[in-house]
Amino acid sequence: MDIKTAIALRKEEIESELRKSFEIVGQQRLRKAMEHLPSAGGKRLRPALAMISADAVKKGEGKRALPFGIALEIIHNFTLVHDDIMDRDELRRGVKTVHVVFDEAMAINAGDAMFALAFNILSRIDVSDDVLRDILEDVSSMVLGIAEGQQMDMDFEERMDISPEEYLEMIEKKTALMFINAAKNGARIAGAPPEIYEKMAEYGKYMGLAFQIWDDYLDLRADEETLGKPVGSDIRNGKKTLMVLYAINRLEGEDKERFLSILGNESASEEEVKEAIALMEKVGAIEDAENLALEYAEKAKNALNVLEDGEEKEALLDLVDYVIRRNK
Amino acid sequence: MDIKTAIALRKEEIESELRKSFEIVGQQRLRKAMEHLPSAGGKRLRPALAMISADAVKKGEGKRALPFGIALEIIHNFTLVHDDIMDRDELRRGVKTVHVVFDEAMAINAGDAMFALAFNILSRIDVSDDVLRDILEDVSSMVLGIAEGQQMDMDFEERMDISPEEYLEMIEKKTALMFINAAKNGARIAGAPPEIYEKMAEYGKYMGLAFQIWDDYLDLRADEETLGKPVGSDIRNGKKTLMVLYAINRLEGEDKERFLSILGNESASEEEVKEAIALMEKVGAIEDAENLALEYAEKAKNALNVLEDGEEKEALLDLVDYVIRRNK
Repeated sequence: MDIKTAIALRKEEIESELRKSFEIVGQQRLRKAMEHLPSAGGKRLRPALAMISADAVKKGEGKRALPFGIALEIIHNFTLVHDDIMDRDELRRGVKTVHVVFDEAMAINAGDAMFALAFNILSRIDVSDDVLRDILEDVSSMVLGIAEGQQMDMDFEERMDISPEEYLEMIEKKTALMFINAAKNGARIAGAPPEIYEKMAEYGKYMGLAFQIWDDYLDLRADEETLGKPVGSDIRNGKKTLMVLYAINRLEGEDKERFLSILGNESASEEEVKEAIALMEKVGAIEDAENLALEYAEKAKNALNVLEDGEEKEALLDLVDYVIRRNK
Repeated sequence: MDIKTAIALRKEEIESELRKSFEIVGQQRLRKAMEHLPSAGGKRLRPALAMISADAVKKGEGKRALPFGIALEIIHNFTLVHDDIMDRDELRRGVKTVHVVFDEAMAINAGDAMFALAFNILSRIDVSDDVLRDILEDVSSMVLGIAEGQQMDMDFEERMDISPEEYLEMIEKKTALMFINAAKNGARIAGAPPEIYEKMAEYGKYMGLAFQIWDDYLDLRADEETLGKPVGSDIRNGKKTLMVLYAINRLEGEDKERFLSILGNESASEEEVKEAIALMEKVGAIEDAENLALEYAEKAKNALNVLEDGEEKEALLDLVDYVIRRNK
C-alpha cells in the first residue's frame, strides 16, 4: 500500500479525534485560539505515522496509538503557533496566523494551553503505567530538544562558522525528533519489544533528516509553480541550509566573496540567484547534500528490516520514497 | 513551627535541586535564558509547600516530594516568563525580564523549554507508575487551567459585567491551582490516601483564594512603604479585583459614575484614589472582600483537621495566617 492511501484510510478518525480533543477546554475564547491552526488543515503526518507504525507491529493496534498521535499533532501545532510569533509570519496553511487573528498575548497563551492539552491527553493513553512513564520522558525530552533546535536555528542566523555536523544536529532536534517519537512510540504502544521500537526510532530519525535536507534541496531544484514560491528563496533569505554550509566551507577567494554577497540579499535578481546556485554546483555542494539525503533514506528503509512484510511496512517504505521524490 | 522556619529549613535543598535541574539542557544560550528568572530568587513557596505537605503526612517524606516541587516551581517560573511578555513587563524580582535581557523570541522559546523540562522531571519522580499517571493528569490540567484563568483575566479587561463568581473562578485557576497541586500531590507522594490528599487539595484551594484576595486588599490598605508601590495602584490600573467588582455592582447613580471615572484613570490624583476607596467603603465592598478572605482562611485551616498534630501541620496552619496578615 502506498503512503497516501495509508494516510487517507486513517484521516477521518484522526480529524474526528483531533476535533474532540479540544472539548475539554471550557474557556471559549481560549478554545477558539487553540483550534484555529489545527482546524485549518494539515497533512496529519505525525498521527498517521504513529498509527501506521503501530499497525505495522501488530495489525489493528493503530487505533490504540491514535490518542498518542493526536498529542503529537497538537504539540506540532503548538510549536508552529509560537514559531509564527517568533518569525512574525502572518500566514500559514493559507489562513492568518493565530497572533494575527487574535493577538500576540492570546497566541502565546493558546500555545501554552495546547502544550498542556497534549500532556493531558498523554495521561490517558491506553498503555501500561510503566510504558506511560517512558513515553512521558520521551515526549518531554522531545519538546525540550525542539526548543534547543529552535535556539540553535536562531543562533545560526548570526553565525557564519556553522559546521555541517551542527546543522544536522539542529534539524535532528527541530524536525526529526517528532518523527522519531511518532514511529518509536507508535510501535511501542502496539507492544513492540525494544529491539523493534529502537529500530523504528532509527527509521524516524533518518526519514526526518532526509525530509528536511530534501526540503532545502527542493528550494533550489524544483520549479516555481510546484514550490509555490520563487526558486532559491532560501538563498535570498540567507538560510543556512546544508548546501549553503558546504558551499561556504568549500568556496574560496572571489567565488566565496561573490557567493556571500548574494546570500541573504533579499533583492538579489533571478540571475544572481542562478549564479549562486552555479557556484554551489561548482564545489559539489548540492550534489553532496542530495547524496546525503539519499543515504539517509536508505538507512531509514534498512531500519524497517525488523518488521515483518505487510501493507503497513510497504507504506512506511513508500513514505521514505515520498519525502525524497516530492515535486522533483 | 512557623512557616518561615519550615521554608528556611528546606531552602538550601530546594535551591540546589532547582539549579541542578537545568544541567540536562545542552544548548547553552537556551539554558541561560531558562535559568535567568529562577536564579533571580523567589520565595520557593510551591516546592516548600509540596515538601511540607509530604512531611505532614509522613515525617521524612518531604525529600521524596522535592523533584515534584521543583517541577511546580519551574512551571510557575515559565508562566511568569510568558506573562511578562504578554504584559510587556520589564522588571521582575528586581532584575530585567527574560524578553528584555534576551529577546522576545528567545523568551517564548525558553518558556516552552521550561515547561517541557518540568514534565521531564515529573517523568522521573519517585512514585509508583499509577500514581505518576494521576499526577501527570493533575499537573497538565493545572497548566491548562492556568491558561484558562489567564484568558479570563485578559477578557475581564474589556468587560464591566463581571460577576464575583467569575472573578473567583479566575483566581482559582490562575493562582490557587498551583497551591492545590502542591499540597495535594505533596501529600500523595508521601503515601496519603484519597481522604487525606483531597482535603489537602481543599487546603490549597482556600489558602490560594485567600492569598489572592488579600493581595488585592493590601493594595488598598497597606502603606506605600510596605507595598513598594503607591497605594491604590490597582485602581489607577483599572484592575477588576473582587472589591472593585463589589463596588461596581453596588454603587448607584452619581457615586457609580464618579467611581468609574476614577477606575482605570492612570493619572488619577492621590485625592481621587482616596475618594474611590471611600466609595468602596460606603457600600461595604472592602469589608466584604476582607471577610471572604478570612472565611476562606478558616476553611483552609479546617481542611487540615485530617492531619495528625505535628510541626508541619503547625507550619501549614501558620502559612494561612501568614497570607492574611502579610504587611497589614
